[in-house]
Amino acid sequence: MVRPLRVAAAQVGRIDRGTPRAAVISRLNALLDQAAERGVKLAVFPETTFSTFFPRYWIEDQAEIASYFEKEPVEGIACCETVKAFFDKAATLGVDVAIGYGEETPDGTRFNTASYVSDRKTVGKYRKVHLPGTFEPFSKDPSVTNQLEKYYFKPGDYGFKAFRAPSLKKACGGEKSPIVGQLICNDRRWAEGWRVYGLQGVEIMCIGYNTTAWAPQLWGIDPDSMTREEAYADAMFHHKLVCQTNAYTNSTFLITSARCGKDDGIYPLISGSMIVDPEGHIVAENKTEEDELVVADIDLDACQQGKTKTFAFAKHRRVEHYGLICERAGVVEPEEPEEA
Amino acid sequence: MVRPLRVAAAQVGRIDRGTPRAAVISRLNALLDQAAERGVKLAVFPETTFSTFFPRYWIEDQAEIASYFEKEPVEGIACCETVKAFFDKAATLGVDVAIGYGEETPDGTRFNTASYVSDRKTVGKYRKVHLPGTFEPFSKDPSVTNQLEKYYFKPGDYGFKAFRAPSLKKACGGEKSPIVGQLICNDRRWAEGWRVYGLQGVEIMCIGYNTTAWAPQLWGIDPDSMTREEAYADAMFHHKLVCQTNAYTNSTFLITSARCGKDDGIYPLISGSMIVDPEGHIVAENKTEEDELVVADIDLDACQQGKTKTFAFAKHRRVEHYGLICERAGVVEPEEPEEA
Repeated sequence: MVRPLRVAAAQVGRIDRGTPRAAVISRLNALLDQAAERGVKLAVFPETTFSTFFPRYWIEDQAEIASYFEKEPVEGIACCETVKAFFDKAATLGVDVAIGYGEETPDGTRFNTASYVSDRKTVGKYRKVHLPGTFEPFSKDPSVTNQLEKYYFKPGDYGFKAFRAPSLKKACGGEKSPIVGQLICNDRRWAEGWRVYGLQGVEIMCIGYNTTAWAPQLWGIDPDSMTREEAYADAMFHHKLVCQTNAYTNSTFLITSARCGKDDGIYPLISGSMIVDPEGHIVAENKTEEDELVVADIDLDACQQGKTKTFAFAKHRRVEHYGLICERAGVVEPEEPEEA
Repeated sequence: MVRPLRVAAAQVGRIDRGTPRAAVISRLNALLDQAAERGVKLAVFPETTFSTFFPRYWIEDQAEIASYFEKEPVEGIACCETVKAFFDKAATLGVDVAIGYGEETPDGTRFNTASYVSDRKTVGKYRKVHLPGTFEPFSKDPSVTNQLEKYYFKPGDYGFKAFRAPSLKKACGGEKSPIVGQLICNDRRWAEGWRVYGLQGVEIMCIGYNTTAWAPQLWGIDPDSMTREEAYADAMFHHKLVCQTNAYTNSTFLITSARCGKDDGIYPLISGSMIVDPEGHIVAENKTEEDELVVADIDLDACQQGKTKTFAFAKHRRVEHYGLICERAGVVEPEEPEEA
């Protein structure tokens, strides 16, 4: 290995609506302990890791909604004192973390955010661009699984900004610090974000997610058209498909971490935490539906095969034909020919 | 089924460097006969179907190179009299065809082209945008497999223009004619082309290919790092990965057809002809490495699930963050931070 690095996806299992923040942090800290014991230099945690995936609920209590967001910067990291203990522990153990959380800015704007934090410093920050679901609830009936990210969050305003992680350079050597990018959950289905990172030479993508394993209204399917087991398998199939393809076509490693398990004993989330290499192969993946550290030794030099051959962008891309991608968000169909 | 259609990938097996054009056409016509017998309305043929995949050779004889290109338009279709028999037969049988060939324009420019032809009329034409490989041969030694598309062809100048196929409307009904797009071989690895078609509401993608199963120099790998069986499996893995993902993320059916077999008894090409549904599932695939018609009954209405929910572009895409995709072809890495 030319630029070796030990990394992990820190998968997090069931968290209920009422689970106290301190109980979650205690579990995350246990994962950090495992990471440090195993020599992991970077651990990627899920999306909105500090609580259950609250956008599934139609919530009317504003205080409850507010409780899902980090507001006060503590030593430059937007978090409460309870959460600060997590970043302190990561710093003490010498483990870099990429972790997702609800963020509320000083002006009250709320984002679905992930931060890459090294030694208590924010090295890179990302706000989720592709918010799935709907502004309006499918139903206010508590038995219905909603997907209200568009209601609870604003779309990210940072774009897709890759950054270097000097802390990892110390671990893996090489002349320059590794290039890192972050996406969150549904973003992984959108090739645009991946490609913007690819055009910055990304070598490690960090992606946390909450992916529901049963959401017929979200998917637009008849609930009787598939069993819950089939729905779980299909959601996992799509997850792996987009992750492996976009890692391959951008010649980057991917560390992707699930919030999984059956929240409140009712709402199933897929697992599928894994580490993917720049050729799209899965090199490590989860074995459980619970808190679990998925570890792999990777060689960042492996990105060079794709970046210099099949996906040598400067040699092969033809930007003069890509205009529509940036010109319009939605579909415009071709006209019906005359005399059709 | 709301908008049913029977379609096929017409896979074509081994063609050697010296195989006469008429012998190839005879085999293609046999596939057309099968298609008509089985009620197929659209058959998709491979890339450069009328000859062996000549860009693998460093060729110095200009007459041989010229022989791989269609020059004279015959009733509006660029083809020689030998090839015209194929389009005549397709018209007689009532089968639409999408087929790839080397095209030479009146001014002598050469493209890697695919045409969608219905009843002897060109309904849609595509010139390959993403030419893989190198301008210079890896070696002029005949034992080396080159990939000289950049030398033999100019990059396509049409972009990615979706079109409607009125002939298919007759078959499947609905208010409007199906929307079709074409890509060729290596294009399928590039999300950009797919997305431009997606933004035109494409429902059927037609993609022919020649994909070598053993090309260590092209891939940038040590020939001793994998066996030929492993290389074949990996090339097939990548083929399916990008096809299934891009069909899923653009909510379109895909018909993709291989030139396969071991040309000249020496050069192995992968098979992998298949029909993929808009959720990324393979609904039919090849069973042989030879001439074979892979048939499926599809329902174009199945595109609506993705197009109206997960991949409802107008609701979810954020074009303000995609600028780099169109601004630059190649990679610009982030700066090393100070004090790194």
